[in-house]
Amino acid sequence: MNNTYVYMFNEGNASMKNLLGGKGANLAEMTKLGLPIPFGFTISTEACTFYNLNNKKISEEMKNQIFEAINNIERQTGKVFGSSDNPLLVSVRSGARISMPGMMDTVLNLGLNDDSVKALAKLTKNERFAFDCYRRFIMMFGDVVTGISKSKFEKKLDEFKESKNYKNDLDLSADDLKFICSEFKKIYKQNCEKDFPDNAKEQLFDAVCAVFNSWDNPRAFVYRRMNDIPYEWGTAVNVQSMVFGNMGENSGTGVVFTRNPSTGENKIYGEYMINAQGEDVVAGVRTPKPFDELKKEMSNIYEEFMDLANKLENHYKDMQDMEITIENGKLYFLQTRNGKRTANAALRIAVEMVEEGLIKKEEAIMKVDPRQLDQLLHPMFDNKILKSITPIGKALPASPGAATGKVYFNAEDAKKAGNDGEKVILVRLETSPEDIEGMFAAQGILTVRGGMTSHAAVVARGMGRCCVSGCEDIKIDEKNKNFSLNNNVICEGDYISLDGSTGYIYSQEIKTVEPVISGNFSKFMQWADEFKILEIRANADTPQDVLKAIEFGAEGIGLTRTEHMFFEEDRIKKVRMMILSDNEKERRKALNEIMPLQKNDFKEIYRIAGEKPVTIRLLDPPLHEFLPKEDIYFQELAEDMKKSVNELKLKASSLHEINPMMGHRGCRLAVSYPEIAEMQTRAILEAAIEIKRELNINIEPEIMIPLVVDLKEFNFVKKIIDDTAKIIFDEHDESLIYRVGTMIEVPRAALLSNEIAREAEFFSFGTNDLTQLTFGLSRDDAGKILDDYINKNIFEYDPTARLDKNGVGELIKISVKNGKSARNDIKIGICGEHGGDPSSIEFCHEIGLNYVSCSPFRVPIARLSAAQSYLKQKDIK
Amino acid sequence: MNNTYVYMFNEGNASMKNLLGGKGANLAEMTKLGLPIPFGFTISTEACTFYNLNNKKISEEMKNQIFEAINNIERQTGKVFGSSDNPLLVSVRSGARISMPGMMDTVLNLGLNDDSVKALAKLTKNERFAFDCYRRFIMMFGDVVTGISKSKFEKKLDEFKESKNYKNDLDLSADDLKFICSEFKKIYKQNCEKDFPDNAKEQLFDAVCAVFNSWDNPRAFVYRRMNDIPYEWGTAVNVQSMVFGNMGENSGTGVVFTRNPSTGENKIYGEYMINAQGEDVVAGVRTPKPFDELKKEMSNIYEEFMDLANKLENHYKDMQDMEITIENGKLYFLQTRNGKRTANAALRIAVEMVEEGLIKKEEAIMKVDPRQLDQLLHPMFDNKILKSITPIGKALPASPGAATGKVYFNAEDAKKAGNDGEKVILVRLETSPEDIEGMFAAQGILTVRGGMTSHAAVVARGMGRCCVSGCEDIKIDEKNKNFSLNNNVICEGDYISLDGSTGYIYSQEIKTVEPVISGNFSKFMQWADEFKILEIRANADTPQDVLKAIEFGAEGIGLTRTEHMFFEEDRIKKVRMMILSDNEKERRKALNEIMPLQKNDFKEIYRIAGEKPVTIRLLDPPLHEFLPKEDIYFQELAEDMKKSVNELKLKASSLHEINPMMGHRGCRLAVSYPEIAEMQTRAILEAAIEIKRELNINIEPEIMIPLVVDLKEFNFVKKIIDDTAKIIFDEHDESLIYRVGTMIEVPRAALLSNEIAREAEFFSFGTNDLTQLTFGLSRDDAGKILDDYINKNIFEYDPTARLDKNGVGELIKISVKNGKSARNDIKIGICGEHGGDPSSIEFCHEIGLNYVSCSPFRVPIARLSAAQSYLKQKDIK
Repeated sequence: MNNTYVYMFNEGNASMKNLLGGKGANLAEMTKLGLPIPFGFTISTEACTFYNLNNKKISEEMKNQIFEAINNIERQTGKVFGSSDNPLLVSVRSGARISMPGMMDTVLNLGLNDDSVKALAKLTKNERFAFDCYRRFIMMFGDVVTGISKSKFEKKLDEFKESKNYKNDLDLSADDLKFICSEFKKIYKQNCEKDFPDNAKEQLFDAVCAVFNSWDNPRAFVYRRMNDIPYEWGTAVNVQSMVFGNMGENSGTGVVFTRNPSTGENKIYGEYMINAQGEDVVAGVRTPKPFDELKKEMSNIYEEFMDLANKLENHYKDMQDMEITIENGKLYFLQTRNGKRTANAALRIAVEMVEEGLIKKEEAIMKVDPRQLDQLLHPMFDNKILKSITPIGKALPASPGAATGKVYFNAEDAKKAGNDGEKVILVRLETSPEDIEGMFAAQGILTVRGGMTSHAAVVARGMGRCCVSGCEDIKIDEKNKNFSLNNNVICEGDYISLDGSTGYIYSQEIKTVEPVISGNFSKFMQWADEFKILEIRANADTPQDVLKAIEFGAEGIGLTRTEHMFFEEDRIKKVRMMILSDNEKERRKALNEIMPLQKNDFKEIYRIAGEKPVTIRLLDPPLHEFLPKEDIYFQELAEDMKKSVNELKLKASSLHEINPMMGHRGCRLAVSYPEIAEMQTRAILEAAIEIKRELNINIEPEIMIPLVVDLKEFNFVKKIIDDTAKIIFDEHDESLIYRVGTMIEVPRAALLSNEIAREAEFFSFGTNDLTQLTFGLSRDDAGKILDDYINKNIFEYDPTARLDKNGVGELIKISVKNGKSARNDIKIGICGEHGGDPSSIEFCHEIGLNYVSCSPFRVPIARLSAAQSYLKQKDIK
Repeated sequence: MNNTYVYMFNEGNASMKNLLGGKGANLAEMTKLGLPIPFGFTISTEACTFYNLNNKKISEEMKNQIFEAINNIERQTGKVFGSSDNPLLVSVRSGARISMPGMMDTVLNLGLNDDSVKALAKLTKNERFAFDCYRRFIMMFGDVVTGISKSKFEKKLDEFKESKNYKNDLDLSADDLKFICSEFKKIYKQNCEKDFPDNAKEQLFDAVCAVFNSWDNPRAFVYRRMNDIPYEWGTAVNVQSMVFGNMGENSGTGVVFTRNPSTGENKIYGEYMINAQGEDVVAGVRTPKPFDELKKEMSNIYEEFMDLANKLENHYKDMQDMEITIENGKLYFLQTRNGKRTANAALRIAVEMVEEGLIKKEEAIMKVDPRQLDQLLHPMFDNKILKSITPIGKALPASPGAATGKVYFNAEDAKKAGNDGEKVILVRLETSPEDIEGMFAAQGILTVRGGMTSHAAVVARGMGRCCVSGCEDIKIDEKNKNFSLNNNVICEGDYISLDGSTGYIYSQEIKTVEPVISGNFSKFMQWADEFKILEIRANADTPQDVLKAIEFGAEGIGLTRTEHMFFEEDRIKKVRMMILSDNEKERRKALNEIMPLQKNDFKEIYRIAGEKPVTIRLLDPPLHEFLPKEDIYFQELAEDMKKSVNELKLKASSLHEINPMMGHRGCRLAVSYPEIAEMQTRAILEAAIEIKRELNINIEPEIMIPLVVDLKEFNFVKKIIDDTAKIIFDEHDESLIYRVGTMIEVPRAALLSNEIAREAEFFSFGTNDLTQLTFGLSRDDAGKILDDYINKNIFEYDPTARLDKNGVGELIKISVKNGKSARNDIKIGICGEHGGDPSSIEFCHEIGLNYVSCSPFRVPIARLSAAQSYLKQKDIK
């Protein structure tokens, strides 16, 4: 078999990113466009994969192809690799499909040794330059290839400079650098127990292996995980003949953007440095100059650059981030790529490029990463401040935004402090519905247990609160009201800060920056709406949520969880009395008192939602979640219910369950206590009738039955609803259309959807529970497990945050197919947390669902994702 | 549309049981055979279903068909329904597909009223007889049709007899009975607020409706549930012209079996009573005579009967249970059916019928209900004693057998008492692996929570201990060591008795009868083995279990749960130290101490199993299950581990999970702590090598990875096993074949079986977990929920005890199909509790599994079920 592992720059183009990596493909494309690119070639990502499968060894075949490519450069440059007369020097750089800035490794000036460095000095007539290159090379090679810490080299350099009283690297003479080189080679030998390799080919293969290996380094690992980059992709390696920005005052290096990456302004933006290599800019030893100044300093080069940069932006139809080197007055492009940008910049660039006529709306929509929109909706920390401080820990980024405040350990204290005007961070082992008010009062929530779809995460996202969850390293001492995390002890009232977008936890107050929403946002989102097919709904439990959801563009409410209303202060006691009742009569009495309160909630929701569809789910959680823990509440209840405290406690403990997620909840409650479903149906329908009359609008409530596993079970509950509806319509001499549907959140319901769809008018996939049951993985206990699985490369991503298309997705497909076979026009959506995740939304679009429903704060993300999904699919067709 | 709801007896035959019910079909068959059967007809089960769907009303069409059938009887008998001169009287009896003795209702003598009773008196010249019939009719009609309690009538009768100083019903004169009739009609009117109906047709339709309705009565409900009879089947109704056993000394009634239903002896067995109706025999007012005596009393009738009974047995090829009436010297058959019998009788009859040449082996195998075999393997209560006492409660019959003993509330006390020679019943809220030794020491186990596959149920069945689980009505007072159940308070040391086959709980000591296994058993089981294809294995965790399993005919061990070994006294402490370790080094130290103990267990198992296959599962339960609750154990551990108690408790509490069944367990443990899997692999393989050498036999261990959801996860653990194996084989200079397979117990694994089967060499469906996750129903919390679901006719049966073919079965089918597509010859079985359930075994056979594995005590059931499944399938083909 004959494999091609190596491609010269003139053999590739921009469309070959998967094979050549982003950097390699763009170097090829620029070569094709005729830009001044130093000669070179790319070792493909396939080679990386092959290398990994081949026990991390470069095969002979691959070696030969690399030799041949080097020969090719030699012919084009007239230089010879490893020569002592006219040496060819190369850079070796990583380049994955998607740019992973700073995550992987680079070696420059490769090919130097004690002989060729002299030739370089002679050829450039610059001995200082040659040895400067050499000492850089030894350090980089030592660091990247053999893992000798950079600091060992830097320490030596600093000691030397100190001994000579030098302040600046430029003070080093050629002789000084010669000495440094010999010292560096000693360091190398000490640490590796062998001499620094002077064979150029050996240097090259070692460097290529090192770059391949860097795909696996811890930084890259974390970056891949955060950005959902599969391990399988691997990285390409680019080998390119060196050009030098450090050859003197006629040389330099720069990093330039075609537009401003912070604001999006259409104006060149960047920095340059004379007589320097790229790494000097990064190291920050000297301050680079704003790119505009180059106009004065080297006007020819500036004009040439501006012309080519413009050409590149027009060619790629996107803002470019370019790296250039000027060698002895000649301009080279070392890299171009679509530049990273803030959310605001992304929107402005997309909108303005359309207005400039550069791109079409469809293209603009594809240019903004939906996940970035989160930045626009939540407060964020100032990035500059973050750089100067170290987090004390890290856990799951469960709900985006940034929060700073004083620590409190229970909902009541948090609420009190919040009412007193304090900024509050609620720290809990895990949260439960009891904590709702405390969570609402807090700026942010930090939990020890629970994953991306734990109670804390779900509720926080719904409220737009920042949340970091599953920080298993925290040890809470409830008695003394403090917690410890990696040797830091934080007491009640101490300030901490949470970054819900990264999962970092800081032990101080950090200023947050409020988001500013520009006009571009709504213009852009309207364009997105023009291209999407999926309907976007929101999960909203309260009138405030509904308001927020509609403000963000929701077309309806896909999930109203009635249980959240049960916790409010005016009703929790009645709910508890209902639960602790001994018989139906007592239960009905309590329910009768709850009904008007619940009806008012629904009226408020209908008033805001107007004619937009609202799906209300019947009571879902196990009843014991509503019960108090403290004695004082039991005493109060006992008095009101005229029972003994002991009796109530016995009853309460009889409701305890070993695995409550698979316990007496969902429609199982309605089967055991039909009167609860009856009361809720009454609240839903009476509210609808009253608002219909009040506003003279058409309301068609959607009643959703949770946790169904069987048609007969669905029918049992549906009959309660239908019978109650009949009574209510008679009583009010008014009727309205209502629909009864079900959550599909248990595998059995997915498998038997053909039966259930005979009676259910709509399906809503509860992907949280469905994922949990399909994996047999409790989302409240998943934190540590998923950590291990991701760290050991078993899972590529957290399936509670991003839909598992192979397993859960397969069940969903079975359900959709079976459901439609029984009811052709059944309306199907999802209302789990995945409803706000772009890749999951794409899946929903592909399999033909009607809608997704997500937290209000994720509605814009969902709208954009839906539009992109449509455009991608169209593109493929 | 024209439906046939009514069939005359001469229109049917024995094969029409589904349509006509068992009784109706047999009446038709007997009619066809020319036996003396009173004329009559059957209203079909389809009519019952139609009636239920038609809002419990009899349609006009059905009414007309019934009239026509009545006309038919009138023509054949020359009597007229409702006539005041020559009245036709009928009986109205229920008759479902499967006989449900005493569960449903019957009305006799229907057609009588104040006029026709006089005609009857005149025609029979027996006024006393006529009014005796009439008073019986009024009472039965009142009871069955309008629900007036029988006792109201009986009380009146008793008062009258007392006032007259009568001892016996036969003392009542015709006038007395006339008076009683009028009194009974008064009772009827008082209770129904209307007169007793004197229109025969009205009587008939009311009675038919009542019989249809009786399908829903609580007794029938319980019976259906215990015998897995679907609600949909409905009951047929048989209307038959009356014949009277109470017409005088020349009349009588009898119930006779062609063979002895207790022992199986081939000798007529039964009772008869002169001048009586069938109900008198049941009521037990007079003592019936052994049937043999009829030979003297009415030799002609006896001979005729013997001839016909013989004919019936030969015709049906089974032992017959017949009801006869003799009217004025003429013999009538009112019913025949295959008689119920004890397990021993069933075996003897089956074996002897083959030996007599009456049936073939294949037919014999189909004649024994596999579930009955339980009776042969466990102690039972004496049925006669049971009749005289009332249970104090009822819960799930979780593990068969009968047990009597003193109550203890924790494993330690139970063990102590057991060691002192006491008989013990362990009563727990729920059991956990910690309780194993207490369960072993107990005769029976009673739990408050948990279903048919709860820990208590599974372990008890494995041990052959009796268990009643999920008795939610029990309130345990742990402090005072007592429990209350339906107003009975039982203290520690009090005797109770449990019937694990019915679920009844008794508050006294009841003698148990040890089972006697006859030679017929092994002969019969050998026949069964000749016809089965499925391999039968056992779930066995200890050498004792393995011994028992092989004794009962297991062909291998399908599941050895290694965790049960961890609880033994000599190792639990080391296990706890392992779990509470802070790092791998500490963990390895503890594991090294556990390894030799575990290896010895496996050696013992291999020694007994010989070359039979043994499947050992890697550690499965969440680690916190092994941790102690009491402080004293923590103190001990802290000393040994040189850590503080507080530190250990914090560590222990960090292992707590909200839904442990979906938590850190199964292969997730091996992913987090590869060293555990390594240790277990070493114990499994070294044990095999040592026994291989010791006994010079071939051992091929099967290592099973639990809770797999993904191929990469499977491979991660398989690599640990393979790497460890390589090392061990090198160390011992010996190698053996071993297989690595997986449980399929999580829906995702079933869906992705095509991937997993690429690497897994066998699949074993863990149907307990698979059912739990497919339904989202925790088996430890399912008790109350399933109760409600079965009581409300949503579920027909408990899916944790009997495999849900629609949902779980569908997943299994998907898995089998996908698994075989990747590995053609993959070995597939099940090892969940369903492996011992006949209907589930039939399913496993149908879909082509290779084996089922069940508790040792269920192995005979499984063998017989497997043979029956094969024969049934063959029959269909």
